[in-house]
Formats: sequence, C-alpha cells, structure tokens
Amino acid sequence: MINVGIVGAAGYSGAELIRILLTHPEANLSIVTSRQYSQEPVDTVFPHFRQQRKLYFSDPDEAELEHCDVVFFATPHGVAMKQVPELLKADVKVIDLSADFRIKDIEVWERYYGVRHACPELINDAVYGLPEVNRSVIEQADLVANPGCYPTAITLGFLPLVEQGWVEPDSLIADAKSGVSGAGRQANIGSHFCEVQDSLSAYKVKAHRHWPEIHQTLSLLSSHTVDLTFVPHLVPMSRGIHATLYAQLGVDAEDLQSIFDERYSNEPFVDVLPINSHPKTKSVQGTNMCQIAVHRPQRGSKVVILSVIDNLVKGAAGQAIQNMNIMFGFPETMGLHAIAQSP
Amino acid sequence: MINVGIVGAAGYSGAELIRILLTHPEANLSIVTSRQYSQEPVDTVFPHFRQQRKLYFSDPDEAELEHCDVVFFATPHGVAMKQVPELLKADVKVIDLSADFRIKDIEVWERYYGVRHACPELINDAVYGLPEVNRSVIEQADLVANPGCYPTAITLGFLPLVEQGWVEPDSLIADAKSGVSGAGRQANIGSHFCEVQDSLSAYKVKAHRHWPEIHQTLSLLSSHTVDLTFVPHLVPMSRGIHATLYAQLGVDAEDLQSIFDERYSNEPFVDVLPINSHPKTKSVQGTNMCQIAVHRPQRGSKVVILSVIDNLVKGAAGQAIQNMNIMFGFPETMGLHAIAQSP
Amino acid sequence: MINVGIVGAAGYSGAELIRILLTHPEANLSIVTSRQYSQEPVDTVFPHFRQQRKLYFSDPDEAELEHCDVVFFATPHGVAMKQVPELLKADVKVIDLSADFRIKDIEVWERYYGVRHACPELINDAVYGLPEVNRSVIEQADLVANPGCYPTAITLGFLPLVEQGWVEPDSLIADAKSGVSGAGRQANIGSHFCEVQDSLSAYKVKAHRHWPEIHQTLSLLSSHTVDLTFVPHLVPMSRGIHATLYAQLGVDAEDLQSIFDERYSNEPFVDVLPINSHPKTKSVQGTNMCQIAVHRPQRGSKVVILSVIDNLVKGAAGQAIQNMNIMFGFPETMGLHAIAQSP
Amino acid sequence: MINVGIVGAAGYSGAELIRILLTHPEANLSIVTSRQYSQEPVDTVFPHFRQQRKLYFSDPDEAELEHCDVVFFATPHGVAMKQVPELLKADVKVIDLSADFRIKDIEVWERYYGVRHACPELINDAVYGLPEVNRSVIEQADLVANPGCYPTAITLGFLPLVEQGWVEPDSLIADAKSGVSGAGRQANIGSHFCEVQDSLSAYKVKAHRHWPEIHQTLSLLSSHTVDLTFVPHLVPMSRGIHATLYAQLGVDAEDLQSIFDERYSNEPFVDVLPINSHPKTKSVQGTNMCQIAVHRPQRGSKVVILSVIDNLVKGAAGQAIQNMNIMFGFPETMGLHAIAQSP
Repeated sequence: MINVGIVGAAGYSGAELIRILLTHPEANLSIVTSRQYSQEPVDTVFPHFRQQRKLYFSDPDEAELEHCDVVFFATPHGVAMKQVPELLKADVKVIDLSADFRIKDIEVWERYYGVRHACPELINDAVYGLPEVNRSVIEQADLVANPGCYPTAITLGFLPLVEQGWVEPDSLIADAKSGVSGAGRQANIGSHFCEVQDSLSAYKVKAHRHWPEIHQTLSLLSSHTVDLTFVPHLVPMSRGIHATLYAQLGVDAEDLQSIFDERYSNEPFVDVLPINSHPKTKSVQGTNMCQIAVHRPQRGSKVVILSVIDNLVKGAAGQAIQNMNIMFGFPETMGLHAIAQSP
Repeated sequence: MINVGIVGAAGYSGAELIRILLTHPEANLSIVTSRQYSQEPVDTVFPHFRQQRKLYFSDPDEAELEHCDVVFFATPHGVAMKQVPELLKADVKVIDLSADFRIKDIEVWERYYGVRHACPELINDAVYGLPEVNRSVIEQADLVANPGCYPTAITLGFLPLVEQGWVEPDSLIADAKSGVSGAGRQANIGSHFCEVQDSLSAYKVKAHRHWPEIHQTLSLLSSHTVDLTFVPHLVPMSRGIHATLYAQLGVDAEDLQSIFDERYSNEPFVDVLPINSHPKTKSVQGTNMCQIAVHRPQRGSKVVILSVIDNLVKGAAGQAIQNMNIMFGFPETMGLHAIAQSP
Repeated sequence: MINVGIVGAAGYSGAELIRILLTHPEANLSIVTSRQYSQEPVDTVFPHFRQQRKLYFSDPDEAELEHCDVVFFATPHGVAMKQVPELLKADVKVIDLSADFRIKDIEVWERYYGVRHACPELINDAVYGLPEVNRSVIEQADLVANPGCYPTAITLGFLPLVEQGWVEPDSLIADAKSGVSGAGRQANIGSHFCEVQDSLSAYKVKAHRHWPEIHQTLSLLSSHTVDLTFVPHLVPMSRGIHATLYAQLGVDAEDLQSIFDERYSNEPFVDVLPINSHPKTKSVQGTNMCQIAVHRPQRGSKVVILSVIDNLVKGAAGQAIQNMNIMFGFPETMGLHAIAQSP
Repeated sequence: MINVGIVGAAGYSGAELIRILLTHPEANLSIVTSRQYSQEPVDTVFPHFRQQRKLYFSDPDEAELEHCDVVFFATPHGVAMKQVPELLKADVKVIDLSADFRIKDIEVWERYYGVRHACPELINDAVYGLPEVNRSVIEQADLVANPGCYPTAITLGFLPLVEQGWVEPDSLIADAKSGVSGAGRQANIGSHFCEVQDSLSAYKVKAHRHWPEIHQTLSLLSSHTVDLTFVPHLVPMSRGIHATLYAQLGVDAEDLQSIFDERYSNEPFVDVLPINSHPKTKSVQGTNMCQIAVHRPQRGSKVVILSVIDNLVKGAAGQAIQNMNIMFGFPETMGLHAIAQSP
C-alpha cells in the first residue's frame, strides 16, 4: 500500500482520481485538498461518494503532503510548479495533471500560459506520461507530466502513422470534439447548461494551449517539425473526446489497419476497432480505454483516424493512475478495470 | 461459482445484467440469449463490452437454460410465464425482471397486461423481490418476481411511513420522473432523440401498469387498501428515477427523519440523506443505491419524500443480482460495489 | 408606436423581451440596459440578434428611461422597487418581471426575499399581471407586477377548480418541473452543464420564493386560505415548466373537462387539451401559450392537472408583453403569434 | 396567393415547411399528405400546431396536387421522381427536398441511392436550388432540386475560396457535425434517445450520399474535379449543422475575410462573422441563416472555415421556401424573418 495525496481534489479530474483510487487495491488515499471546501466532508460536495470511506478536504497549505508516496496535482496550471521541487526533495513522487511540465521549450510554455515558469530546471527531468510512448522512462520517473485530454486522443490516433513516416508531416489536421467537463468545474457562463445544450461550436481556433503539446510529441515521434492544424469543439455532452484526424498519405503507405493492430497489440488501453468501425465516446465513458478506427475514404490519398477517450479518465485521472501503477511496479491495469456504462 | 443465464439479454436491462455479472466473483455468465442478434458477438451489439470476456448471443429456443443454476428473464411480459415451469422442474432458480409474477390477483394482472396468464398456479410461489421487505422469504425462493423500477423507488420511499401507520392511507400521491431507458431499447417514435430532448411530459396518467404493483405492496404493508395516485413523467435523461411522494400525516406522526434512519440503518442499498437534502438521480447512476430524503414543508401536515434510484440497476438488473446473492447465500452486496460516475 | 425600455436586458428574460419586441408592430425598443455589457452591441452578447436592428446596451444609471412610454424590469428582486416611484411620477408605465410588487403582505415579502422593501406604499397600486384573472384592472394599471414562472403555470392550472370551489382548499399539491433557464443567466456551479445534464432533482422543498405568490393568488381566488404544498424540480432542458397538480375533489365536482373548456374558451393563451391528453413542454416552447390537460385517474377522488408553459415567455417576457398590449389598448396577441418550433 | 402542397408532410422537414408556410403572406397551404396519418388532423400528430389553422393530412394517392401552384416533396428519395413528370405537365412547379434531382450524373446517383432513376430525362432541366449560386436560373425553373443539409453548409463555406481559386482543389476536407433531426422522424435504434445522448460518433466515413452532391457543386464552382474528404458526425442535439472546413491555401490567397465579406455582402441569408468568431449552431436555430467564420490558424498555409445552419431550415424547408419566393417573384426573404430563440 502506498500513501496517496491529491492537490486540487474538488475539480472534475480530482473527483475522478478519488473515484478510481477509492477502489485501487494498493492505494491508500490519505490526503485530498481543496482550498474552497477545506474541512468539508468530500461527500457533501460530491454526494456520489456517500457510502464510501469518509474523507475530508484539507487546506492545501496545511496538508502534510511530504508523508505521501505520491502526490497528484489536479490543479490549474501554475500551482504544481511551485510545490513540486520541495516534494521531490522529500522523496515524494509527483504526477502532475496540469500543464506545468509538459512543454520542453520554456519560452513556448510561457507564451501559451502567460506566466513565468517557477522551476524551469525540472522541465528536463519531467517525463511526459503517455505510457504508449514512454513506458520505460515512466518506470524510473519521479515527476510525470500527465498529458492533456486532447493530446492523448490525438497523439494515440496519429502515433503509428507518424512513427512509420506514412503520412506527410505537413498535412496533419485534428478536428476534436469535447464534452463540457473538459472545461473544468468552474462556474462561468460558457459552461452554463443553457449556453451549451442543443448547440455546438468551435473555440480557440486561433490558438489552443494543447496545440504546442500535441505539436511537440508528434514532431518528436516523426522526427520532423510537423504542420498541425487543431480545431477544438464544444459538444453538449458531459464527458468524452472524439478526435477526427486527417492526413495526406505518403508514398509508402500500405495496410493501414495492420499498422495500428500491430503497434497497439500489447497495449492494455488502446483498442483498435475492426475495419469500417465508428467508435462512440459513450463506449469508453468511465474507462481508461482509447478506441481507434482507421479509414481511407474512397481509397483515396487521405487517411482518416477516429479516436475516442473519456477526457476525465484516459484524458486525465485514469492515465495518471496508469502512470502511478507503472512508477510503483503495480500491474499497469490495476484499479482500471471498469466496464463502460451504456446507456 | 454458479452458472447464470439471461433470457432477453439485448435490451437495456439485459445489457446491465451482463455488465454487472461480468465482474461478479461467484457468477459464471454462460448463456445470454437474443432472438434478434442470435449468434452475434455481444460486443458488436454493445461495443462497451469490447475487451471483456467474449460472449455470443444464442437463440432463445436453442439455449440450454436447464444447465444453469439461475436464469434471469429480461424480457417483455408474457415470455417468462411460458418457460418458468419447466425451468423450476429442472431445479433452476428464476429471477424474472418482467411483470409476469408480480401481481397476486390474476384478474388484475390480466386486465392491465391484456393477455391470459400462462401459469397462474405459480403466482403464489413467486416471491416479490424487494429485499428490504422480503429478504427472508427471498432466501428460500426458487422464483423471484423482481420489482418494477417505479415500484422500487416509490415503495422504498413510502415504506417506513405506511408500516408505522403515520400517513393517511387514502392520501398517497407519487409523482415520478423517469429517464428514457425505462422505455426499453425499442425503436419507436416516442423514444426518438428529437421527441424527448429539451422537453418533459407526463404519460399514462389514466393508468400505468406499475400502479397495481405499487398499490398491492403498499396496501399489504399498511394493512389497508391504500388510495394511490401515480403520475409518471418522461425526462430527457438516459437513466434515473426521481419519485416525489406526498402524503397526509396521521395524528401520531412524530420524528420523520428518525423513522427513516432507523428503518434503513442496516440496509446496504438504502441511504437516508441528512435533513433538508435533495438527492440527484446522477448521484446513484450506475449503482444499486436508493437515496431518500424526508421533508415536511412549512412544518405542515404533509410529508414529502424524495427517492432516487437508477432504473436499470436498483430498478432492474442490480436488484435482480441482489436477489441472486440472497438466494444463493452470497454476501448481499457482492458485485454491486460500483461508485457512481459524476459528472 | 410606443417607446419601450428594458432594464436588465442581458439576462434570459431580458433577451426574450428583446426578441419579441423587435418584431412587435407598435413597440419601438429604444433603451436596453446592462451594467455588465454597457456600450456593447447587443449582438455581440447575443449573436442570435445579428441581422436585426442594431442595438447597444446602455448603462442603467445613464439611461433616460423617463422618455419611455413603458419600462420593463427584467432585473433580480430589489432593483425595480428603487426606481419605480420616479418613473411613475414621470408618467412612465412599468411592468416589473421581478418579484418586487407581487406580494401584498410586506412582511411576508421581506421574510422571503431577505431585504427591506423600498416603497411599500406602491404595493397596493400594483396590479398582479395575470390577464386571465385581472384583465380589466391591468387595462387601467400604471404598475404591473408580472407573475413568476411557476405561479403562472400553477395558478392557471388550479384556477377553474378553486374559483368553482370544486377542490378541497387544504389539499393542493403542485409538483413542478422547470428547465434551467429559470435559474437565470448567472454563472454558478448549479447551472453548470455537467451538474445538470442527465440528472434530475428537487430543490428548495422547505421553502421556495414562489410559494407565497401562488398561495396568495389561490387563496384569493378560492376565498379560503389554501393549504399548498409546492415542490420545484430542476430538469435537464433549457426552457419549459411542467406543473403536475393534485387536489382532492369536493362533493360538488362534476364534469371537470367542461369547467376548464368554459373558463378558458375566450382566452387566447390558454389551450385546454382534449380528454386524456399529455402536453409536452416542447409544444409551447417559444410561445406565450399555456396548454392544460385535465385528468381524474381511476375515476377516483383526486383530480390531476397537467399545465405547461415556456418559462421565459408565458412565464416571463411573453406575459409581460401581453400585459403591455392590454395596458396600451393594442390587440392582446400582438407580437405573440410565434408557432412553437419542434423538434 | 398561391396554392401550395406538401407531399410527405409528417416528417421533420415536412413539419418545418408547414410551420413556415402557415405564416407566409403569399402561400395558401392547401394540401399536406401523409400515408401514415391520412385523415388525421395535423395538430394531433404535431401538437405545436394547435391554435393554428386546422389542417388534415390527406392520402398521397388521393391528393389533387395538380390544383396546386407549387408542390414540395419532403419524401425519402425515390418518391418525387415518379410523380414529378405529371405535375410539370399540369403546370405545377416542383421543389424537391429529396435527392432525386440533385446529381447530374445518373450513374453516380444510381450507385449511391441504390435504385434506378425513374425519369432521367428531367435531370438536366432540374435546377440545383442553392440561391447563392443559381439565383437567376431558379427564377426561371419549374423543377428545383433543393440541396441537402450538409451540402448547403459545406458549399456555402467553401464557395468564395473555390470560386477564386484560392485553395488547392485536391485538399478539401469537410468535418461536419449534425443534430439528430437530420436522420429524419423514423423510429430506429440509432435515433433512440439513449443511444445518442451524452455521446458523439462519426458515421458513414466510407461513403455518405451527400458526398457526390458536394463534390459536384464544388467541382463545378472551381472548374476542377476537387478531391474532397467528408466525414459526418452525429451530435446529441436536435437541430443544427456545424461544418468545419479545411483547405490548403494556394499561392495567390490574400485577405480571406474580405473575400467572404464581398462575396456575401448582398446575400440575405449568409452572415459572415467578424474576424476570430466562432458561430454556434444555436444562433441560427429556427432561421434560414448561414453564419460563417474565417480562420487562418497560426498564420499558416491552411484555411479553416466554420459554417453553421439549421439543418431543417436553411438545410431543408427554409431554403425550399426561399426558392419558392424566387420562383414566384416574391421578396426572397418573405416568411423567413424568424429570429433564433436562445437559449
């Protein structure tokens, strides 16, 4: 059993960490912090945790996080980078669900996030926590930068193609659709039920903060600086990301289905669907699974990849726990066996 | 391990039985039938079961149900009553999620369901599977009539009051709201997304088939023929029942909260909320829990009970498995530990 | 043509006033105020008004409302009461969509709304703007207190019965379901898409501010102090109220359908449905119509009334414009002819 | 006044034709047919038409359509082509909302629609009813093939770019998202509320029937055979299409915003939004408007166009009536002035 802490446990990703960790056989959830709800029982804020082990939110400034074996940060950007150095010194492993350690180029990070980075010296030690790419380094990591939700769905969709060099690196388009929980549990007019329901719109077409993260990983994987167009959309649903990916096939591209089947044959959380499939976000809701379908419409020169995840699980809390399992030598799927609920 | 069969496994209740039984430590799901999808893999119909143990639908006429230890019927009314006698003879226990064995008065049943009953002689042997009322008889039962979704939410809400005689038996009103999955996985215009979304309406105010079932149980519990007004409503959500119950308090009524707290203190699946609570259906989604809140607005003479369940779990598949656990001597909560997913 | 102003035009009721008044043949919408959006074009806040006459929000403190013939207040409670006296002196008629002038008993008002009333001397001059009850007084009124959304649906549903004395005045129950727009266009966690979607709950069972308003009108109409139990619910839809009303029939009750047909035969905005109907909120969405159905389940002693409105139209802006039409001698239905959009 | 008939008036497009025509000053809606609901009042099938002029569905085989001045076909493909020749002979103008006369290449049509065309000789006389392209020919037309919903949103989005040759014709990608009403008012499991709600998926990526229609128009406009990748998605909303369009900019591309502003400056139903806008489908719901925004993310070589319509209005019934107005010399916007309802 390891002792686990969560900083920022009252947001949607934090609550999802709680939900999964409460049934994880090797995790003892000992600290959950929330400035807003400090001292309150977790189940008054989240009544779906009634009947579970009684937990109380503690004040983040008073929580004794250094007694944990691992601490998850489910905070907005700018919080983790201030606390991580001290935790690492106290031999606490850190899994940061925020963006603080995802971008290697500090200048880019500072431009996109609009603040000065508090500990640039740790950036290079941080491991980008996408197990399908970095499993062996995650095993040794003390600090994991857990990928964003869009980056997870999009990177896993493009991965086999860019690794093999089967698509033109300057032709990548990611049209992504997200449920509203991706915007977090903040009260703002854009998340108001009446503003979202029965409507759909794109947002931040000019520049979204996940662009440099996706761009960095795909460029690394393809050994080229890719040209990536990324358009996120807000969908009237609570959870789920559906990434529809387009690319120009290179001259060497052959059996697209096989390359996906092979690349992911040993991956516990990537499920390549049979030819001509159309995954639904609902089919992975509540699970850590990514379902992928490969298409080549009209036998043409474009490939279309459909990639779906639950933004709060494989796109946040679930992947973070997958990383924890890898870091501590637990079976990678431990605590992550839930079957999606449908309808 | 017991061998389990499901007849009519391609509906929403059937799929929910599969979902729960796949992780039940003592159940070996050996037969799942569907006439429509006979021979098809379960996970092509329900892609959320990909990555689980591979199951195939079998034809109900060819399935060797007599080799099962228990068979669930998740069929429309009129199916179970034709097959149950033979199964019982073969020493197979039966849990019927349909209405075939719920009503003791055959005439009433035949009037409400519009068909002749095929085995009226078994009606008296059938045990009404509401564990909070009939636990000890369920233990001995070979044939359990699993309660309907509305009856479960409404009966559990009224139960402590009618048992104690604290409400006027001729004053019971149940205003119930249900998600669309309650209408089943049939294609009909009334369940079309565009007909349901962004709207709410009552239906079958004149007479709903669950009325005699609720009426029978509440009359039995109160030792009076109760006067019950029951109005069901269709809500634009997938799962969940919210029953809002009204009754005139009798002269002896005292501490309403305590009577609920005490009545349900040992019940694993009834959760009485603190004073002045308002349960959300979402808080019990995917779980076998019933959350109840007790109100007495303006300290007046009316009691208002709020009772929420997931219609497919405590209102169908979950309660059926709770009954199975009781019948086979397993811990009552086995396989039913899921935490609700929220949002 | 009359000059019209709207104070608080950036909320949902305010926007709905704009939508209807832009096509009203006798209204010249000259002032729309919003403190938050002062100086901004209306169509940047509400892009559905692009292509309409260009309007700008003005600062409420600088708007020359005294030049209007009529001013609508679509503000939270506590605003109108401070400005109305001056406007009336300037011969401007006022239609207040907030609660400031609805309750005749100041003490009750102050207890429910938690503030001191700023001009109690005007309460008695204010006319409660339910045209189906007060049409002739509205004609002469300078100050109309526009009814709340729940009170409109519930009062119109009970009206014929309490007027005739056909129901026991101590037996009234109103179980009401509302779309989320009823909570206003404020960013708060309770209106967050993820908190509302796919769920239903009751709220404020102990005491809702609309209770004294409904109680006052029904008591007046029945010449008794009625006993009213009122439970509001939040439904995952944008617009619409569905009130399900219950009462004990008195000894004299006879043909219930006829009493409704007759009472409302000349009402342009109350539509009594044929026997055994179940109105959908969607059928009146965007319109000023109230659809009502009358039931007597199992020929028993209880009457059940189903009453649906669009909370932003008949429950707010539409009824306010209906009142304006009456006050200024325009045809009562002017500007209110929209056909509901379905689906 | 002209006499108007609708064949297939009980579907969603048919009902929308009724809704708009009921308030059209020059249209006398004299015949509405429905085989399923023959003889039934329209307002029992569609209760939102209560309080409107009383209409009855007539049997399509008995309807005297030859007495109409214009007949709309809101039928599935394969119906109009059998009746149009006779109607044209009787001097009745026809506006076909189905696909029967949209594709000039009969072989392609027959391959995509799987039936033999009944009157190929009329294909060349049929005018493709996109007023922004074909206004002057529509004026003279007797037979108008009303465009599909996806083709309308996508063609209007690409139009200025392909006309000017500013994009590479082999680089067109249309990622389109549609509400469920686009699938029609048929009961099938894919439109079931529980299958659609809280989920999103692509469908028919291999080949959708709207592909050849879009391909034909864009090829014509660009004077090249374009290479078009088209992926439709089903969104949990009732109405609305959001097309996200991608293309590689050619060498000559300059001020993208201006080219859209100019091309559509005189178009009553195309609204080019200011730079950096993100249209919501809700903003055009119930209206005949197409809102378009132009983006060039990161000043790169790709253009991104966002184009939204209401699939039942500009994507079907509204555009059909716009065509009727043009064909009969009425003001083009007559009957089409509705302001979108929001929320």
